Amino acid sequence: MLTTHHVPFITSLITGVNGFVGVHLAEHLASRRRTVIGLDIQDRCVIEGGHYFQGDVRDSRFISEVFKKTRPQEIYHLAAVSSPNKFASAPFDSFQINLMGTISQLEAMKTICPHSIMLVVGSAKQYQPLAASRNLSENSPLDPASYYGVSKNAIEMITKFYVHKHSLDIRLTRSFNHTGPNQSVDFVCSEWAHQIARIESLKAPPQISVGNTEEVIDFCDVRDVVEAYRLICEKGSSGEVYNVCSGKGTSLRYVLEYLLGKSSLKSSIIVKRDKTDKQALNAAILGDNQKIRKEIGWSPNIPIEKTLDDLYCWWLDKMKDPR
Amino acid sequence: MLTTHHVPFITSLITGVNGFVGVHLAEHLASRRRTVIGLDIQDRCVIEGGHYFQGDVRDSRFISEVFKKTRPQEIYHLAAVSSPNKFASAPFDSFQINLMGTISQLEAMKTICPHSIMLVVGSAKQYQPLAASRNLSENSPLDPASYYGVSKNAIEMITKFYVHKHSLDIRLTRSFNHTGPNQSVDFVCSEWAHQIARIESLKAPPQISVGNTEEVIDFCDVRDVVEAYRLICEKGSSGEVYNVCSGKGTSLRYVLEYLLGKSSLKSSIIVKRDKTDKQALNAAILGDNQKIRKEIGWSPNIPIEKTLDDLYCWWLDKMKDPR
Repeated sequence: MLTTHHVPFITSLITGVNGFVGVHLAEHLASRRRTVIGLDIQDRCVIEGGHYFQGDVRDSRFISEVFKKTRPQEIYHLAAVSSPNKFASAPFDSFQINLMGTISQLEAMKTICPHSIMLVVGSAKQYQPLAASRNLSENSPLDPASYYGVSKNAIEMITKFYVHKHSLDIRLTRSFNHTGPNQSVDFVCSEWAHQIARIESLKAPPQISVGNTEEVIDFCDVRDVVEAYRLICEKGSSGEVYNVCSGKGTSLRYVLEYLLGKSSLKSSIIVKRDKTDKQALNAAILGDNQKIRKEIGWSPNIPIEKTLDDLYCWWLDKMKDPR
Repeated sequence: MLTTHHVPFITSLITGVNGFVGVHLAEHLASRRRTVIGLDIQDRCVIEGGHYFQGDVRDSRFISEVFKKTRPQEIYHLAAVSSPNKFASAPFDSFQINLMGTISQLEAMKTICPHSIMLVVGSAKQYQPLAASRNLSENSPLDPASYYGVSKNAIEMITKFYVHKHSLDIRLTRSFNHTGPNQSVDFVCSEWAHQIARIESLKAPPQISVGNTEEVIDFCDVRDVVEAYRLICEKGSSGEVYNVCSGKGTSLRYVLEYLLGKSSLKSSIIVKRDKTDKQALNAAILGDNQKIRKEIGWSPNIPIEKTLDDLYCWWLDKMKDPR
């Protein structure tokens, strides 16, 4: 008699599912035997056909209700103010979203599903930026230059407390820059790709505004990043922090030249260096990904050129979309 | 001709003015050429004749309005959930009060009165309790056993960030146990004094319930503590943390014997050791007060016996009060 080996589906909750990373993670998990449950602040989920809860991560009763109804086995807590500039423009509300929006998850997990696995996403901005004479490992000094970075350090401290106090299984990341289709124009690659796609679509004059192009950034493709998140939940250890990074620097000058090279109007585009970068301290922050390579078996696969191709095409497609 | 030397009054804002420490601090500052402005959540201020604002420290608009109206030169930020047991019984709300209630002050100071001086009060509970083979100095490891302690560590981290980012003048404490008149029964000395005063006033049978009496605690008198807070604002340095402690251990057994000795019914009181202490990890946490002695010139003056005398008398007086 033949038997079929049934691998049960895992119930995965993604907070911030409508965000840049959330959309990619939902798609990735759905292809890996997960029943994906999304949660975000907007009325509608941008992912079609999934389970969706609309509400505010700062509302601990709402979060508790979602956990009770869905009993998630995995929680990917992405919901946050993730642009340092946006954070700095409204620090009180941003701290509230990042801090209380995480504590609500920790309390719900502790009370309702203490045997689940949670991933709490942090940032390269947690590190001391000027200390980076070499690639930043998980043991490098934490002394951030931004509100955003300090919010993530406070979250990491509180999360580790819950791990030890209640033996919860929570893994943490410090994720370096990532880009790809679906990213907002708050982030540099997407902003440039957007400007060039507008020029290419004849929706803007052939002129692009840029800031500092001398920075060297550690970029990953968002699709590599969401794979790292899944693998950390599958193979990581509780209370551990993992850098998610490429380990390689890409200069913004290269990104700009590459994106300009994709436009048929390249030769006529004027580059104006007239933007002031508020977050210029990110310069040359490169990560060390030894730990995630060794302990999780993850490494980035998608070259920056493919990432930029897809990002640019995504913007071009959006230009055609009449909505 | 005789001239009078006019020392101008300083405008001092106290958040949490109705609390145990707030009441004593308001009285102390009023006697030291301060115009005291109180802020708390209750409808009425327990201090008579002062300026008072009723509202929630988590409400950043309210805090901002108070700062705009009063332009305080000193801010003593005491408002917090300060009992580890109370904190643990409602972690989400307590984190919100302690974290967002401090960030609202930091934002208001940054925006409205960046040249003021602020004192942010922390706790001995921020330290790793089991590491205490000798008195804890400001450089001892921070690895708290309680939610309350981790909330104070997160606040300290965020406060130091504001100090460095915006050159604000904020001084911090890690205050060890303090007691005296006006303390709630959430804290051990006051709880015992309350029980014995009830027996003495014939409002309870001659039986007292206690938990672990083997602990050795670093107690200060609250009136010494508020003097330390004023002196830190007068003589301290921005971004610095000061232990506020006696440096000496008092066993709870001694406290109990001393308080029992004050009752005329002493010989008939039965001591029942039937309480479980949830916070027993505080055992033998003694502070090192070298830094505040050297840099501020403060040292505690009031012996524990005087503190306990006054605490007991305060409870006895309250027993007579028909309200």
